[in-house]
Amino acid sequence: MSSKRIGSRTVRLENKPTIISAAAVVGPKEGEGPLKEYFDIIIDNDLYGEKSWEFAESKMVETAMRKAVDKCGKKLEDVNYLIGGDLINQLLPSSFAARELSIPFFGIYGACSTMAEGMCLSSMLIDGGFADLILSGTSSHYCTAERQFRYPLELGNQKPMTAQWTVTGAGSVLIAPNAKGPRIKYITVGKVIDKGISDGNNMGAAMAPAAIDTIYAYFNDTKDDPNSFDLIATGDLGKLGKQITEDFLNKKGIDISDVYTDCGVEIFDLEAQDVHCGGSGCGCSASVFAGYIYKKLLKKEFNKVMLVSTGALLSPTSTLQKQTIPCVAHAIVIVNEE
Amino acid sequence: MSSKRIGSRTVRLENKPTIISAAAVVGPKEGEGPLKEYFDIIIDNDLYGEKSWEFAESKMVETAMRKAVDKCGKKLEDVNYLIGGDLINQLLPSSFAARELSIPFFGIYGACSTMAEGMCLSSMLIDGGFADLILSGTSSHYCTAERQFRYPLELGNQKPMTAQWTVTGAGSVLIAPNAKGPRIKYITVGKVIDKGISDGNNMGAAMAPAAIDTIYAYFNDTKDDPNSFDLIATGDLGKLGKQITEDFLNKKGIDISDVYTDCGVEIFDLEAQDVHCGGSGCGCSASVFAGYIYKKLLKKEFNKVMLVSTGALLSPTSTLQKQTIPCVAHAIVIVNEE
Repeated sequence: MSSKRIGSRTVRLENKPTIISAAAVVGPKEGEGPLKEYFDIIIDNDLYGEKSWEFAESKMVETAMRKAVDKCGKKLEDVNYLIGGDLINQLLPSSFAARELSIPFFGIYGACSTMAEGMCLSSMLIDGGFADLILSGTSSHYCTAERQFRYPLELGNQKPMTAQWTVTGAGSVLIAPNAKGPRIKYITVGKVIDKGISDGNNMGAAMAPAAIDTIYAYFNDTKDDPNSFDLIATGDLGKLGKQITEDFLNKKGIDISDVYTDCGVEIFDLEAQDVHCGGSGCGCSASVFAGYIYKKLLKKEFNKVMLVSTGALLSPTSTLQKQTIPCVAHAIVIVNEE
Repeated sequence: MSSKRIGSRTVRLENKPTIISAAAVVGPKEGEGPLKEYFDIIIDNDLYGEKSWEFAESKMVETAMRKAVDKCGKKLEDVNYLIGGDLINQLLPSSFAARELSIPFFGIYGACSTMAEGMCLSSMLIDGGFADLILSGTSSHYCTAERQFRYPLELGNQKPMTAQWTVTGAGSVLIAPNAKGPRIKYITVGKVIDKGISDGNNMGAAMAPAAIDTIYAYFNDTKDDPNSFDLIATGDLGKLGKQITEDFLNKKGIDISDVYTDCGVEIFDLEAQDVHCGGSGCGCSASVFAGYIYKKLLKKEFNKVMLVSTGALLSPTSTLQKQTIPCVAHAIVIVNEE
């Protein structure tokens, strides 16, 4: 059995895959939220100078990726792999960004778990010596997601209070082996979990069991102490899913309450910005990580963080075919350690 | 710079990631084609006992995966990662299969390049010691792909002669470190290439430049001899794309004509089965590799093979927004070597 594996699901990375740079680009609404000071670029219009929302989203993720590379003085030609994806069919935003960036490309789909999925894969490929530099990132856009998964915006549909608001935002990280900076120490990859929720307007409840399963697996595998973390952040469970996760983990003997938050709860002022249960979308944990969390790690205000991006793998077709919602969550532990 | 990297794009795998098992499940039409004797299961009805084509596709890929594990006496619980995806929005078939298989899941999207994309990632994760057993596979289904990308089947649309026929099929491989069997020795990951083709009924011409770019990169990186291969097989370029690839590589000084074929050309009798330029879809290179090529490798009738699965990353939305078709191709070299 591989010496890098711990317990049933966790991998320990031994060659210090380091996040040497990160960048976040967000939309106007996100730029008015509580984390506004942490984002690299706040766009002032949802179209971002493009002719469609889809290509605005593509430009956001391309910009976040170029920015992450620029910020640390690297060049796109130095990057061995680009690992990314998004919510939009056929990964339209990421595929077109990859065309412009001209870096060997692995397209991934994990719905809103994509940021952590990309960082899991990137950190293993860097740790294993298969690449010297990997760029990973993802995006979402309120208007593209609503159009694809729900209703035309022009309908002005009302949402139930369990619903969340898809973040318009993109985040990107650049990972290199054994460098100076916060490094990825453990990853726990998620199984697809489906506890029978079929309501696409209650994603927090649908995704919480996947987050619980992955977080529990991490602590069970490593025997780590939740209170040794400065922050455990789920991706986009929102207010309701966060409460479910905290409660159920507590019942299973894992008390994360003192260090736990959810990126979807943090990115908006839930009441003032009228976003019901909070933010969602691939861009939620991506921009909160690449903006807020990464900058706090750099400043040593955080020294040990777990990011658990959560994804609902539903499709409009599976919903029409009366299926419940399969979900997945991947965890990465990032530390400041010599 | 990493010692595992050769030239600009190629990785040499040093710890013998071995394909210890493979299985292919195909539809009735594919089961009447020239490769029928090589497939593990030929289903006799496009619905495969399910209520929708999407869930028939999901059952096909789940069956191919279970079969690959069963055939070599392993258990699903022994598998550390499942890496897969398909053409259908939100990876519906793969996501629902992953729910049933309960293995930590990386969803990927590379359109019809998915088989090689999964094998690239799997072989690196195995080679790097991050897993002891990885299951990778993909699927496509004529009826789900037509419904999503083209027209309702009930319209009975005629296709131009440049069009291809989406394979109903699934293929899966099980990869372990340093075992007995054909092993993955090199991988070359593709960049996203777009030479301006916008006709979704001429995928061969759209994807050929991506195949050319990746195959050229492999030979340029390794200085390998095309005639040292028993077979170089592109994924699903069809008759036209195959000719373009052969011609343009020849102009660039790489003559693969003596050993070159395309899975889309092989899987059907093009004229008798009325499939115009040939087969396409993720399931094309997946079932041809997991069926025909893998069995020939096991029998030592092939000892060195390159599989180059090719994907067109177009989306119905990008087509409506008048964009051209970005494409990608990934190459893996599989050898029988001690």
